[in-house]
Amino acid sequence: MDISQFSYWSGMVGITAFAVTAVLALATRGIDLFSAVVLGIITAVGGGTVRDLVLDVPVFWAADLNYIWIAMAASFIAFWADPLLTRKEIHSLFLYLDGFGAALFAILTVGKVWDMGFGLPLAPIILGIVTAIGGGLIRDVLAGRPTLLMNRELYATPVMFGSMLYMVLLYLMPEHRFICAISCGLFIFVIRAAAIHWHLSVPNWLMIKVKTER
Amino acid sequence: MDISQFSYWSGMVGITAFAVTAVLALATRGIDLFSAVVLGIITAVGGGTVRDLVLDVPVFWAADLNYIWIAMAASFIAFWADPLLTRKEIHSLFLYLDGFGAALFAILTVGKVWDMGFGLPLAPIILGIVTAIGGGLIRDVLAGRPTLLMNRELYATPVMFGSMLYMVLLYLMPEHRFICAISCGLFIFVIRAAAIHWHLSVPNWLMIKVKTER
Amino acid sequence: MDISQFSYWSGMVGITAFAVTAVLALATRGIDLFSAVVLGIITAVGGGTVRDLVLDVPVFWAADLNYIWIAMAASFIAFWADPLLTRKEIHSLFLYLDGFGAALFAILTVGKVWDMGFGLPLAPIILGIVTAIGGGLIRDVLAGRPTLLMNRELYATPVMFGSMLYMVLLYLMPEHRFICAISCGLFIFVIRAAAIHWHLSVPNWLMIKVKTER
Repeated sequence: MDISQFSYWSGMVGITAFAVTAVLALATRGIDLFSAVVLGIITAVGGGTVRDLVLDVPVFWAADLNYIWIAMAASFIAFWADPLLTRKEIHSLFLYLDGFGAALFAILTVGKVWDMGFGLPLAPIILGIVTAIGGGLIRDVLAGRPTLLMNRELYATPVMFGSMLYMVLLYLMPEHRFICAISCGLFIFVIRAAAIHWHLSVPNWLMIKVKTER
Repeated sequence: MDISQFSYWSGMVGITAFAVTAVLALATRGIDLFSAVVLGIITAVGGGTVRDLVLDVPVFWAADLNYIWIAMAASFIAFWADPLLTRKEIHSLFLYLDGFGAALFAILTVGKVWDMGFGLPLAPIILGIVTAIGGGLIRDVLAGRPTLLMNRELYATPVMFGSMLYMVLLYLMPEHRFICAISCGLFIFVIRAAAIHWHLSVPNWLMIKVKTER
Repeated sequence: MDISQFSYWSGMVGITAFAVTAVLALATRGIDLFSAVVLGIITAVGGGTVRDLVLDVPVFWAADLNYIWIAMAASFIAFWADPLLTRKEIHSLFLYLDGFGAALFAILTVGKVWDMGFGLPLAPIILGIVTAIGGGLIRDVLAGRPTLLMNRELYATPVMFGSMLYMVLLYLMPEHRFICAISCGLFIFVIRAAAIHWHLSVPNWLMIKVKTER
């Protein structure tokens, strides 16, 4: 299995995790099968779709429908297997895989946008973040849930730092691209995993204090 | 009147119904004329606009502004004629026309995407659903209402099944395309009309049961 | 400083005001630095991005990242300088600058779309409105706040009338384009400034009355 195959199959794992965690997050609201599948697919491919619209390239899933098939199948299974998947240890596993997916898609996007020379150096970072969290944002908006931008979960912040780091490393040592990608992806994943494990949240000094006199 | 003229004028009826039902749905919130017209137009053309962005073709209303003029006029009239239009029988009429519009736009979109050979066989179904319900989703999000994905109304489900059926029939008998389109459109409309008439909703076995222990 | 330079630097002032007012509006909710910067940037460039996607031209900020740098810097500063910026007189200043930005971006967009001959005469007006208020709409949706379409603030209405007026004047006297642009921009800004100063809102006769019997 070479590198491109590895990232392809990793991507399918990420898509699966995005769809499964979406359905599990929505299940507590009592949605129907159709909405579960639609929101599972949107969560899985929504961020990458917005990225491709901004880049003005064909949307990635039109050329390879496996992304949609996998997201659809994962959403179906999550819908029916909900009682099993919400068991503590299995739910945790999918949260980690979801973090793995966010790390992977951010890093792949930074590399893709860098290769296109599109809006360097900022656009790769912005579109990396969009790809990693955009689908979840659209899902939450459609489901009427507070988006992750409004809570203190450490989700988007490691994605941003990892994408920035990868961008810097691509400028400094483009010849070691592969090892840089792996390192920055791991960087994002490890912080995200730590945040899940120890329930870390954004520290107080990075919050605007809500002043009572307002 | 030939087929393309028929579908054109039917489309205008659908656009009108989308805009009118949008304004009536929002009127209970006490919005102003400007917002009513903006949200009426967005509801009428929003789904098709997202479809065209994903397909990377020019947005359909830029080439033929009648879609916008009609949506604008319908929203204006609905705003001022609100007391008349909210009479039970007239409101019902527009709900049925809205279902007719959803059926029509889904079927037209499946045909359009099939002709382009874009992401077969899944993309036509996905974009058919997007075209039929996308405008209403954007409206509800902007208006702060729960979207139809979060209630049990039978709206998106018949659209999905009708689009899937049409896709299958296009593979099986492309030479009978016209009759297939009419049948699948009727299929969607009849289920939707039944849902309006008998207040049908998504059956329990298609819902995730909200467990109390969560 | 010629005209294009003037509109360029004015644009940067508008972007700054959009980002700063966004962060100040969100600060009362207690968001973190990352979300503040993301939502500041989205507010500043979101409307123009949607416009460019519909026009199918490259997004404006990819070719000139200064828009993003400025929005990012303004959001950072607004986050840390929040106690200073929320002082009554300074906050007011940014509200006026925000109105200035809305007027400027609407007028620039009408001119840009007119030059492209895209969907005349409606599309320039629609896209003018989208550019002026679209970023704020996306911000409010992502932050879970009611959008400006659902309140009675006089914000979008002057943008609409000014854009319509400019469109009419471009047809009547394209040779006096520059003076028309300035006049219509001032028209929007003056109404908006009056609305801020005297707390004007949409008059009752432009509201759908919420009937109690419903």
